[in-house]
Amino acid sequence: MTQSMSTTFGNPSSTHGFGRTAKSMIETARKSVAKHLNCEPQEIIFTSGGTESDNMILRCAVKDLGVRTIISSLVEHHAVLHALNYLEKEGVRIHYVDLDESGSPRLDHLESILKSDDTLKLVSLMHVNNEIGNILNLNRVGALCKANGAYFHTDAVQGVGHFTFDLKSQPIDFLAAAAHKFHGPKGVGFAYIRKKNVLDPFIVGGPQERGLRAGTESVHNIIGLQKAIEIAYENLKEERAYIFGLKKYFISKLKGLFPTAHFNGLSGNLEESTYTLVSVAIPLVDSKSQLLDFHMDLKGIACSKGSACQAGADSGSHVLRNLKRSKTIEKHTSLRFSFSSFNTIEEVDYVIQSLSAL
Amino acid sequence: MTQSMSTTFGNPSSTHGFGRTAKSMIETARKSVAKHLNCEPQEIIFTSGGTESDNMILRCAVKDLGVRTIISSLVEHHAVLHALNYLEKEGVRIHYVDLDESGSPRLDHLESILKSDDTLKLVSLMHVNNEIGNILNLNRVGALCKANGAYFHTDAVQGVGHFTFDLKSQPIDFLAAAAHKFHGPKGVGFAYIRKKNVLDPFIVGGPQERGLRAGTESVHNIIGLQKAIEIAYENLKEERAYIFGLKKYFISKLKGLFPTAHFNGLSGNLEESTYTLVSVAIPLVDSKSQLLDFHMDLKGIACSKGSACQAGADSGSHVLRNLKRSKTIEKHTSLRFSFSSFNTIEEVDYVIQSLSAL
Repeated sequence: MTQSMSTTFGNPSSTHGFGRTAKSMIETARKSVAKHLNCEPQEIIFTSGGTESDNMILRCAVKDLGVRTIISSLVEHHAVLHALNYLEKEGVRIHYVDLDESGSPRLDHLESILKSDDTLKLVSLMHVNNEIGNILNLNRVGALCKANGAYFHTDAVQGVGHFTFDLKSQPIDFLAAAAHKFHGPKGVGFAYIRKKNVLDPFIVGGPQERGLRAGTESVHNIIGLQKAIEIAYENLKEERAYIFGLKKYFISKLKGLFPTAHFNGLSGNLEESTYTLVSVAIPLVDSKSQLLDFHMDLKGIACSKGSACQAGADSGSHVLRNLKRSKTIEKHTSLRFSFSSFNTIEEVDYVIQSLSAL
Repeated sequence: MTQSMSTTFGNPSSTHGFGRTAKSMIETARKSVAKHLNCEPQEIIFTSGGTESDNMILRCAVKDLGVRTIISSLVEHHAVLHALNYLEKEGVRIHYVDLDESGSPRLDHLESILKSDDTLKLVSLMHVNNEIGNILNLNRVGALCKANGAYFHTDAVQGVGHFTFDLKSQPIDFLAAAAHKFHGPKGVGFAYIRKKNVLDPFIVGGPQERGLRAGTESVHNIIGLQKAIEIAYENLKEERAYIFGLKKYFISKLKGLFPTAHFNGLSGNLEESTYTLVSVAIPLVDSKSQLLDFHMDLKGIACSKGSACQAGADSGSHVLRNLKRSKTIEKHTSLRFSFSSFNTIEEVDYVIQSLSAL
């Protein structure tokens, strides 16, 4: 990225050499992303991040494809939920799929909605929940959508770079991703738009991104995204195994420290949740719970009570609120910890030690 | 920016120390931008660039303020023109102000439209035209708007960092800017939204930017924007005088080389056009005109036939097409040259020499 800012500073839309060099770096990045997800380069549209990608896909599917009904869930990211609130005011019908006791969408209910509504439909369900880690079976949901003539969009912000995709064979129409979720720069992401789905741009203006997203491209950010996705997929198997080990170890230690700890959603289930996070509800007296943020922060530990995107808000987590948890567990204090290949077993021990010193 | 990517990598929405550090850097950047334009920090909303800012302002003014009529001109940037096309389809009435012979909006016509239409209006006229350099008198247009109860938005992408603003006293409601136009990074800009104008977000989702622009902030890009605006305004007087000298010299040399050269718009007028560009129509036989791009490119000279944002398109420049030029001049070949403080008199001589070798 630094090199690009110093040497390939041309405007990619300029026809002179400086511009063409920048343009070619963007196209190389697009090819690399497409290769790693097994889709065509033209199906990747660079955006300012996951939120813009979700907004673009949902709002353009209504505007340009004539979608009249969207089926989603109450534990989606606000980028999706707030876009749906906006579209509902515009007259789009929104259904929310029932969740099972672990917070995953009930596919039998999804199917019954798909069959009961004969308008043009889109299903928007996230690949990996950012707060509780539940993994959606994309192929099953996509097949259900296909069988019922509905488009399928997945907010895969937590999935891209951590799980493999094969978009040529997977029944996915749209997908949103953000670079900073796989160690890339903040402020860049992409929308995958299957080529049969012809959308007009969400942000209009110049003809950048083949006319699908106006605005001078953030060349260095796109190059950063490219590098990050390459590193992520080249080392996926090893890093996944390593991080999985950290999570497994952390869970066992947490269970030792707090025998009545509850793992929110599927985050305590090593197979059905992402290996990158744990969301745990622990029993703490109020005085300790209130100081917890402060205590962990003083120790230099970055954990979160909700998602970062709403951690600053007082209203708490809409995801945790939508889980069917017992009154006892609801009174527990929930904490979310995320892991990467840069974390160590020693750091996990340090977190456990810090929690035990509460 | 490099330092920020290495050390302040927290998510600004996270409540832990890593997040708070990133958040505080964004707020420091916001204060710096506000100080340089003399407005309040809360009136600056960081976006992915000028195009998003224009889209946000125009579309949210309609959606949230109830604007029903927009008055603009046919020589605006496509970020504005295409947003207006979109809004027109949604039922917003669009008027285009007549242009005078130099391509500037006729303010008498603007006034007559303002007086003849009694719906809620917004005027969108750019500060400095990106192709022909014409400078709009923001205070006169703003006063006209104010006197007639209309909002005033200016696409100031070419103005910010090159001209001074005093937004507390200037009658401007909205303004769009992009960092890469004042040597900052690509993919970041801001919208100035006067605090009395309460908008909802264009990109919806998390509560970033005080709920006005969702999506994790591109912290390093925002820091780059801050640094660029600080450098631009700290050195404005000297750089302006220096670049003005380059332009003046270039114009005199061009006149010597092509006595029948025509300067498009006001770009040959040193007082009424920006000091940063010249758009010149020169008489060339077809064979030479066709090879011109290639010739200049081989010499390492970055110039453009239209704006970069449409230089790749075959349709030519909509700005030049909307100028009232003679048939003779229309057959000339138009070239746009831009200057910065990094350019030298020797480079200008080299361009002249390259043009003379055609």
